[in-house]
Amino acid sequence: MTSTTRDRLLRTAADLFYREGVAPVGVERLCQTAGVSKRSMYQLFATKEDLVAESLRVHGPAIVTGYFPAADADLTPRDRIRYVFECLDEQSGTPGFHGCPFVNTAVETRDPDHPATVVAREFKERLTAYFADQARDAGFADPEGLAIQLTIVFDGAAVRAVMRGTSLDGAATRTAEALLSVA
Amino acid sequence: MTSTTRDRLLRTAADLFYREGVAPVGVERLCQTAGVSKRSMYQLFATKEDLVAESLRVHGPAIVTGYFPAADADLTPRDRIRYVFECLDEQSGTPGFHGCPFVNTAVETRDPDHPATVVAREFKERLTAYFADQARDAGFADPEGLAIQLTIVFDGAAVRAVMRGTSLDGAATRTAEALLSVA
Repeated sequence: MTSTTRDRLLRTAADLFYREGVAPVGVERLCQTAGVSKRSMYQLFATKEDLVAESLRVHGPAIVTGYFPAADADLTPRDRIRYVFECLDEQSGTPGFHGCPFVNTAVETRDPDHPATVVAREFKERLTAYFADQARDAGFADPEGLAIQLTIVFDGAAVRAVMRGTSLDGAATRTAEALLSVA
Repeated sequence: MTSTTRDRLLRTAADLFYREGVAPVGVERLCQTAGVSKRSMYQLFATKEDLVAESLRVHGPAIVTGYFPAADADLTPRDRIRYVFECLDEQSGTPGFHGCPFVNTAVETRDPDHPATVVAREFKERLTAYFADQARDAGFADPEGLAIQLTIVFDGAAVRAVMRGTSLDGAATRTAEALLSVA
């Protein structure tokens, strides 16, 4: 029972915060949309900040999964890097796409120590670690350095899509490819 | 007289929105900090949205100027591109740095048609145009394409600095250099 209320709150929070932003969505509206009383919410989460952090932690993995190829896919390590950027290029400009939820949350809080930004950073570091693993397997000279550069491109391309509200027209993949070609 | 009130409001808005974000700063607090009555504010700006847009428009140029070398500086076009990224690397991790105000505003509004996002995009397009001009002067094959890629790197690096709250340790310049080396 409590678990259902919790799930509903986290799902509603993840959806609304992603669509509209963290600060514009008040606790009142959040609870109303989730069909949960404020009292119940505060029994589950001490603060709105905790709820933001937990909604990212719980719903982040599903978002991330969409950007990675299947573990047993017949792809080279370099293809596995490209795959992530092709996904981003495809997602950009589609209805419901509002960029990277981890970037958005960190930008909105402006605070690297905010519990939600801590969670956001963990997810971003997983992306960087994925790039580094593939770059290592592909035999690139500086896998960690390249992984940071690829993460910068991923985030910059996500932001570009949000600023323009249109498709990236392959710009994420092209930029990543350029970096791979000199790595 | 009205001009002074307006200036004070716009300066306070630019400062507070950059430091804390647009949504978390209410009109009440903004007016109190600026020492302006809400009535006066609404005489000058029909909505908070208009105020956000106008504060970016008025205070954006000063922010942008800091990232560009002097027009008569003894620099090659390629140096002029690198200069922008060196500035960003230097700014990152310093107290008071909260990333790119244009990116932040666009991410916060989640709306490409928001008046402030329209202004933010204009400034971002000026950066892309600057990169394209320099890339053309440097004789690169596809100045417009390279300029988009460099803008993606700039924004991704700015976001990285905000997410981590630490210096970029030269990552912006290194990534831009990698792109220039294959362009």
